Amino acid sequence: MKLTILGCYAATPRTITNPTSQVLEIRNRMFLIDCGEGTQVQLRKNKLKFSKINHIFISHLHGDHFYGLVGLISTFMLLNRKTDLHVYGPKGIKEIILLQLRYANSFTGYNLYFHELESKESEVVFEDDKVIVRTIPLKHRIYTNGYLFQEKAKERKLNIDAVENYKIDVAYYRKIKYGGDISLSDGTVIPNAELTFDPEPTMSYAFCSDTVYDESIVPLIENCDILYHETTFLESEADKAESTMHSTARQAAVIAQKANVKQLILGHYSTRYANIELFHQEAVGVFPNVLLADDGRIFEFD
Amino acid sequence: MKLTILGCYAATPRTITNPTSQVLEIRNRMFLIDCGEGTQVQLRKNKLKFSKINHIFISHLHGDHFYGLVGLISTFMLLNRKTDLHVYGPKGIKEIILLQLRYANSFTGYNLYFHELESKESEVVFEDDKVIVRTIPLKHRIYTNGYLFQEKAKERKLNIDAVENYKIDVAYYRKIKYGGDISLSDGTVIPNAELTFDPEPTMSYAFCSDTVYDESIVPLIENCDILYHETTFLESEADKAESTMHSTARQAAVIAQKANVKQLILGHYSTRYANIELFHQEAVGVFPNVLLADDGRIFEFD
Repeated sequence: MKLTILGCYAATPRTITNPTSQVLEIRNRMFLIDCGEGTQVQLRKNKLKFSKINHIFISHLHGDHFYGLVGLISTFMLLNRKTDLHVYGPKGIKEIILLQLRYANSFTGYNLYFHELESKESEVVFEDDKVIVRTIPLKHRIYTNGYLFQEKAKERKLNIDAVENYKIDVAYYRKIKYGGDISLSDGTVIPNAELTFDPEPTMSYAFCSDTVYDESIVPLIENCDILYHETTFLESEADKAESTMHSTARQAAVIAQKANVKQLILGHYSTRYANIELFHQEAVGVFPNVLLADDGRIFEFD
Repeated sequence: MKLTILGCYAATPRTITNPTSQVLEIRNRMFLIDCGEGTQVQLRKNKLKFSKINHIFISHLHGDHFYGLVGLISTFMLLNRKTDLHVYGPKGIKEIILLQLRYANSFTGYNLYFHELESKESEVVFEDDKVIVRTIPLKHRIYTNGYLFQEKAKERKLNIDAVENYKIDVAYYRKIKYGGDISLSDGTVIPNAELTFDPEPTMSYAFCSDTVYDESIVPLIENCDILYHETTFLESEADKAESTMHSTARQAAVIAQKANVKQLILGHYSTRYANIELFHQEAVGVFPNVLLADDGRIFEFD
């Protein structure tokens, strides 16, 4: 699992910082999460292939999370994209994008599907054979979702020595990998545990930006491997966090601790802070495994 | 008169080039012309004050000319702008911007005025005591206008020696500067020409992007000082220019020559060309005074 931070600062794009956008690569799928202004340039800077993006998840309709989407969709047109593109986001996103394409008299040469969200309960928004994505309803000034990306259980690993020893036909390997026991021709049943090793563990990634401190998300993200949680402010500006419905670094760490995640990544820093190291200092006081997102930073997890 | 090119490339923003946007400073007014994605970052890079921008002119509703507008309007909000902001552009621009602000549940703390254009005839869209701005109807794939910025005639310069010699009271200086003759107490009329020098010449700037080759604009921009004319393609791609309703460098130069402008500035290059110097080479074969726009380039004219 690889996470590339394209932008992780709040509010306005600046010369040196970008609004929220990140790319999650998991089981050979590439998911774009949020798409602030300048995302397409950040994709280029980070040498990520436009053609590999087929699913875009938008958390909410504040500009620093989606003003780059219409430009990216237009660029896909100019690049003669043919592959389907799926956009997941709050109700309204379709109207906003299509209105602009209509005035430009532009039509995508690819199928553009909008999956508009309205539910306040967690729901599955994407699922294939390897990955499942659920919403994490967040509390912000407007309707907002985080997203939980979970790898599905992988196949068990074949114990080649064991299957060859029992002279099991190759035709049964798939059944074995999926956990099946095997009956030999003499009627003996070989339990799967004798024929396989445990699969590699699956990974999960929870993206939570933007939100006020909200313990109700804890059951949804419990035990997940990586939690990206916003922290627009430090505790010294806790009142501002509350009034703008954002979180402090300490609050993000409390959520990480309560949810028993393995790793917390902080982001969505207010540009008022010159030194983001302060966010790390504040969070590690509560939860030890804290990493700081920064534009262009890449995290790889096994 | 000072022109700062924030972006002058066609189509998609890239790591090293930006879509169309430029700032014209004239008689202490700052006009933003077009606003492609990333314009606010380009404004910062070029150290132009956001607070000095009160009038934004949008040529047409293709993304590379206005996708940065909603972000700039949002940033003005975050900067607690109070001054009125005027946006001039094709009908539809108001609906596009307000729809996005509405979904974001955002309200500008400043008055935001949209001046929507529909006319296919040139019209005055802005006028104050020093500058007048007219549309230049262009022919492109969708409704498009260029803009002609003209300084109004300046006051005549007082010939201090002459007015003091005639002992003319200071109260009459304003009348003299505006071209009036003066009657002395003995009835003698002193013609204005004796009391003043000619004013500094006024400047005019025509912005024409995007358009197919179109001689009908010549009377509108005739004798203007500076013409910025698009040239998306070179003559080798003249068919592509025609089919996408853009111009070649040679065609831009022909327009400059026919309109008898003093200076031609080329821009809106297709990103297919690695070396924009080719545009200069092609244009100077037809019209001698050619300058190349490039992102971050500043032109000052007296």
